Amino acid sequence: MPELRKDPVVGRWVIMATERGKRPSDFKSLRDQRKGAPCAFCAGMEQMTPPEVLAYRDNGSQPNTPGWRVRAVSNKFPALRIEGGAGRRGDGLYDLMNGIGAHEVLIESPDHDRGLADLELHQIEELLWAYRERVLDLARDNRFRYVLIFKNHGAEAGASLEHPHSQLIALPILPLNVQQELRGASDYYSLKERCIFCDIVNQESQDRRRVVFENDDFIAASPFAARFPFELWLIPKTHGSHFEHAATSYPGFASAIRASLRALKRSLDDPPFNYIIHSAPLLEAQSKHYHWHMEITPALTKVAGFEVGTGFYINPVPPENAAEALREALALSESQPAPQVARAS
Amino acid sequence: MPELRKDPVVGRWVIMATERGKRPSDFKSLRDQRKGAPCAFCAGMEQMTPPEVLAYRDNGSQPNTPGWRVRAVSNKFPALRIEGGAGRRGDGLYDLMNGIGAHEVLIESPDHDRGLADLELHQIEELLWAYRERVLDLARDNRFRYVLIFKNHGAEAGASLEHPHSQLIALPILPLNVQQELRGASDYYSLKERCIFCDIVNQESQDRRRVVFENDDFIAASPFAARFPFELWLIPKTHGSHFEHAATSYPGFASAIRASLRALKRSLDDPPFNYIIHSAPLLEAQSKHYHWHMEITPALTKVAGFEVGTGFYINPVPPENAAEALREALALSESQPAPQVARAS
Repeated sequence: MPELRKDPVVGRWVIMATERGKRPSDFKSLRDQRKGAPCAFCAGMEQMTPPEVLAYRDNGSQPNTPGWRVRAVSNKFPALRIEGGAGRRGDGLYDLMNGIGAHEVLIESPDHDRGLADLELHQIEELLWAYRERVLDLARDNRFRYVLIFKNHGAEAGASLEHPHSQLIALPILPLNVQQELRGASDYYSLKERCIFCDIVNQESQDRRRVVFENDDFIAASPFAARFPFELWLIPKTHGSHFEHAATSYPGFASAIRASLRALKRSLDDPPFNYIIHSAPLLEAQSKHYHWHMEITPALTKVAGFEVGTGFYINPVPPENAAEALREALALSESQPAPQVARAS
Repeated sequence: MPELRKDPVVGRWVIMATERGKRPSDFKSLRDQRKGAPCAFCAGMEQMTPPEVLAYRDNGSQPNTPGWRVRAVSNKFPALRIEGGAGRRGDGLYDLMNGIGAHEVLIESPDHDRGLADLELHQIEELLWAYRERVLDLARDNRFRYVLIFKNHGAEAGASLEHPHSQLIALPILPLNVQQELRGASDYYSLKERCIFCDIVNQESQDRRRVVFENDDFIAASPFAARFPFELWLIPKTHGSHFEHAATSYPGFASAIRASLRALKRSLDDPPFNYIIHSAPLLEAQSKHYHWHMEITPALTKVAGFEVGTGFYINPVPPENAAEALREALALSESQPAPQVARAS
């Protein structure tokens, strides 16, 4: 059973995969990739994955057979185990618990070669509905406090399989950065009686210098203190603390995601990236001070121990310059559809 | 002039290198390295660096000529500028200031091919004295609140030059992780009236499972909630909040550093790593709740946006297993000196 261990100084939880327990020699081949192996996420290969926990299917197709449009399965190599109790306990001054949780993969479409930037809007919207359905299902398990929804695109961003997919991890604890964001947003609300993210939306929308895309429901902008070159935050204009309760904004969110990823793809030649949906904890009531959103971080520069150890970043591209380049790329991609998009329409 | 910008939600400061202002196309060659070029850090090449701000020299040798044992120079491509005022100001809801600070390189020895693991103890001790002297000098500039001392070893850990060197960044702000550690340690002290790091030293010293090396002054152990495989913390046994005021422990610290780096080098085939000295802010009085130490993080696994975006880590090697392997490697390296060490004695 993996363990969840808490750093006693800063309160950061770490999954300790005690069963896999690697020896030093294991690191020499850690990144070996099987090349040319059949893809377990392609249509027709459903038996290669654990059974599906959700699929949106064309009429009449059977579970774990082709005919799905979006498909969620348990991760074959989960970081956490679904069975058992939390078993919170101490070890001297330390705190730990059992590594319980869910770790799922959401396969974004049956098409191996088309990423989110190239999908139709209704397909991205359906993926958002799949995220939501899985969150609501996992929220019924009262051992879980948080569901992380994220995507790694490209090997440099940690993706170990090419076929476009997202991941979801349900956790019995709050990740450190979530704790920090909740505290920061709550402190601001105490001071101002306003949501800090609503204030960001207003200021960016007027300022325009960092905005890449905007529609009635969403703004996509490079943040004022971006850690990474071409980092983007997608923030809903209507206040809401939980992604899973904001379904009416999903059409606008799908447009903002596609526009942002198209701009990045065109501007930076399909860069590796990660995105993470930031949402309030499962068991908390909807709040006035927290505001759900998505953060997209291209992996253009190596993150070294310096950044991780200090929480202090050096960004060589001011967000104003990044946004300008991304706006230009987006205008080009709208006027001249990329080949993949043309092929699909 | 670079800017320091503050994330309004979590309070993280970022250096925005507004002058370098890269365009997307610049990223295609960002990691190009000149191979075979002469090394600016080797003895005889002193004119290739900015003038030295400190050097420990053999009798009679002149500044900026050979004869030095440890040498500190300004970084030729500094992330921050030394001139000017802080210029703290607002931009709507955002906070920013001028990118003032110092960015220096400490060349650890004239020998291009010998890293800290292979130096004599008195050489490492002298490097620690050089760190201290630079911190005390920069502390006299009351614009600065913190001096980060760190080392990147290996390209994967962010080192852009091979010749063994450390870096130092003096900052007018506190890095986010420093803020978190100070708060965590202060909260613990409020609750227990004990220093959390003193408690960690005591528990690890009795438990032994995570200890790699121990002498009268220091303990080197893999932390209970290690983020990374083979992560090591080197903690002084005598309480003290500031590295620069702990000079009596430098001989013991030098031994602990060399033993830790030898164990890592032997066990993991000279892995890339980072280390950072964690110390209390410059202007703060010595405190009972904060305890300076060094954190060494081998860069064996890629840090992706998921970890950075969540502050949540998955570590495939429990620290107990890592410490066992490192103890074995250290015992071997002590009984059979590595070739480089034999050559040097």
